[in-house]
Amino acid sequence: MIETKTTAIEETTAATLPSRAYAAPGAGAKLAPWNFERRAVGPHDVLLEIQYCGVCHTDIHFVNNDLGISLYPLVPGHEIVGVITKVGGHVKKFKEGDIVGVGCLVESCRECANCKEGEEQYCLNGAVYTYSGIEKETGNVTQGGYSNQVVVNEDFVLHVSDKLPLSKVAPLLCAGITTYSPLRRWKIGKDQKVAIVGLGGLGHMAIKFAVSMGADVTLLSTSPSKEQDALHLGAHQFVLTTNEENEKNLAGTFDFILDTVSSAHDLNPYLAMLKTHGTLVCLGIDPTPAQIAVVGMVFTGRTLAGSLIGGIAETQEMLDYCAEHNITSDVEMIEMKDINQAYERMLRRDVKYRFVIDMATL
Amino acid sequence: MIETKTTAIEETTAATLPSRAYAAPGAGAKLAPWNFERRAVGPHDVLLEIQYCGVCHTDIHFVNNDLGISLYPLVPGHEIVGVITKVGGHVKKFKEGDIVGVGCLVESCRECANCKEGEEQYCLNGAVYTYSGIEKETGNVTQGGYSNQVVVNEDFVLHVSDKLPLSKVAPLLCAGITTYSPLRRWKIGKDQKVAIVGLGGLGHMAIKFAVSMGADVTLLSTSPSKEQDALHLGAHQFVLTTNEENEKNLAGTFDFILDTVSSAHDLNPYLAMLKTHGTLVCLGIDPTPAQIAVVGMVFTGRTLAGSLIGGIAETQEMLDYCAEHNITSDVEMIEMKDINQAYERMLRRDVKYRFVIDMATL
Repeated sequence: MIETKTTAIEETTAATLPSRAYAAPGAGAKLAPWNFERRAVGPHDVLLEIQYCGVCHTDIHFVNNDLGISLYPLVPGHEIVGVITKVGGHVKKFKEGDIVGVGCLVESCRECANCKEGEEQYCLNGAVYTYSGIEKETGNVTQGGYSNQVVVNEDFVLHVSDKLPLSKVAPLLCAGITTYSPLRRWKIGKDQKVAIVGLGGLGHMAIKFAVSMGADVTLLSTSPSKEQDALHLGAHQFVLTTNEENEKNLAGTFDFILDTVSSAHDLNPYLAMLKTHGTLVCLGIDPTPAQIAVVGMVFTGRTLAGSLIGGIAETQEMLDYCAEHNITSDVEMIEMKDINQAYERMLRRDVKYRFVIDMATL
Repeated sequence: MIETKTTAIEETTAATLPSRAYAAPGAGAKLAPWNFERRAVGPHDVLLEIQYCGVCHTDIHFVNNDLGISLYPLVPGHEIVGVITKVGGHVKKFKEGDIVGVGCLVESCRECANCKEGEEQYCLNGAVYTYSGIEKETGNVTQGGYSNQVVVNEDFVLHVSDKLPLSKVAPLLCAGITTYSPLRRWKIGKDQKVAIVGLGGLGHMAIKFAVSMGADVTLLSTSPSKEQDALHLGAHQFVLTTNEENEKNLAGTFDFILDTVSSAHDLNPYLAMLKTHGTLVCLGIDPTPAQIAVVGMVFTGRTLAGSLIGGIAETQEMLDYCAEHNITSDVEMIEMKDINQAYERMLRRDVKYRFVIDMATL
């Protein structure tokens, strides 16, 4: 029965979908309007009209080809929320009109050990990223959320509670899950002293999550101007790390440090702030190697780890957690045409704390 | 009653103890005979006639002042076994004639969070190392086990089973606990793929422990000559890591890697061999900083950690485990006068797998 129905739907949705976006035509180029085709809605796909898309620092890394894996023209954007306007015949989890989100992943092999564990972000055969990936269905390059619409397999689409203001939900799809996942993996909770390094898109979410989990939270920053904001967001302490004396006073203080800084910086001062067996988790994807004093880690039993977003099930868990605890991102809305200016402001750290594009302005 | 008894004993043991040893008179100097005074046996101390002392690579680091914290004259040696010849009046755990061991620690603050957790090696007020430490009781420099006798507070003395050949027990006090502790902390057991980097004093103990815990064990080495030995010691596989193709084939293979190499080397190839969420634990205390590709750790959720010996309770647990599983070190006995030659051979990696000094030859 399902097969019959599917065939019918497939026939009616076989046409590719003319779509609009802002794209970078080449490495480091300004973003500009671009028209392209999205794939037809397949039996397991949903078509999503994008209402808001967050602007992540990773978007800039990819526009600039900092990791050497960008494909152009490149439509950035992996903090996508919107409404479903069409579903394929086999779609079971969603219906037209549902409010949903799409994050950094749109497909994975589904067969490797990591996919089976629900960690599609670490797919051993290569997860398909929301942009600059290769679409399994067509072989085309995936294009992100700075666009009017997107077609995604339902298994990579998230339910969004209608309790939360949608524009403020968008950044949860990357900044949210990227900070939530390591806090959960390292079982952060009461009686733990946690530091967050950097107060940007990730950092401000990290404060909200860590505080909601009951930890004692300190924001570490090189900008004195961040103090009031950090405390307002719920951090219990703020420490300015441009002051060497402050750094020394924090030696051996924290059980866990979440480093949200996306540019190259010295990690050793943060390692020195960990308690015995404490862990520093890095989230930034700057390609510069770090000089690490490993002998210091030996003498103190300290740990350095990396963490990449989260799997689909955990992203849903995070969105549900946000609905339950009334957690969203602090955002500054922009129009699509202002994206290049927004990038410049981000590089000057002039954003509180996430730009979100109102896709109605495309 | 105890007080009365103690006073009597204290009176009879108040004299310092003329002792013999081999010491390094200064940084990088050859070791030579040296006479000095051990402290008097206090009420909580035992006097130990040293029968065997293992020779650890850390001894060479300290003779050469590689960490900049050596105090001269310096008597190395922290893999000490022998027999108790005198006990202080308050000593409860030992009696004359007991076979015992002393490792890298002879005292700690006993009050900090780490000491209370039984992790004296990470004492926040500074553990007292068996040599080049400052003796709390006297303010003198501690002197190690290349000596005829040593006075140690009973709380830092370990019981040794008479089931095991004593000369082969000596290296357990450092090489044993240093490898046992991280294998326990990271819960190594069945269904886990473990790699050991380097086949020296630590590496050969790591193979024995990891195999006894049920793991699938691979020895990684740059010396083809180590293959037969590794397999003979129980390793299930041997891989020569001078071959780049071999390295690539191991990408994403191991749950856990224990790096026992004590000289500077590139850690990134080993990080690349870890599965998602896998951990590379470094044990060596070479002071050279390592260049770490942190972005690779982010994309794979990998972890790098350090680990330092183990606490006193865990060292006793390890010794008991060795007695239960009939695990000892493979040793080459040397006479005291041959210690400088032994150091030269160690630097050429020419030892299977631990030199142990027969202290009767002093």
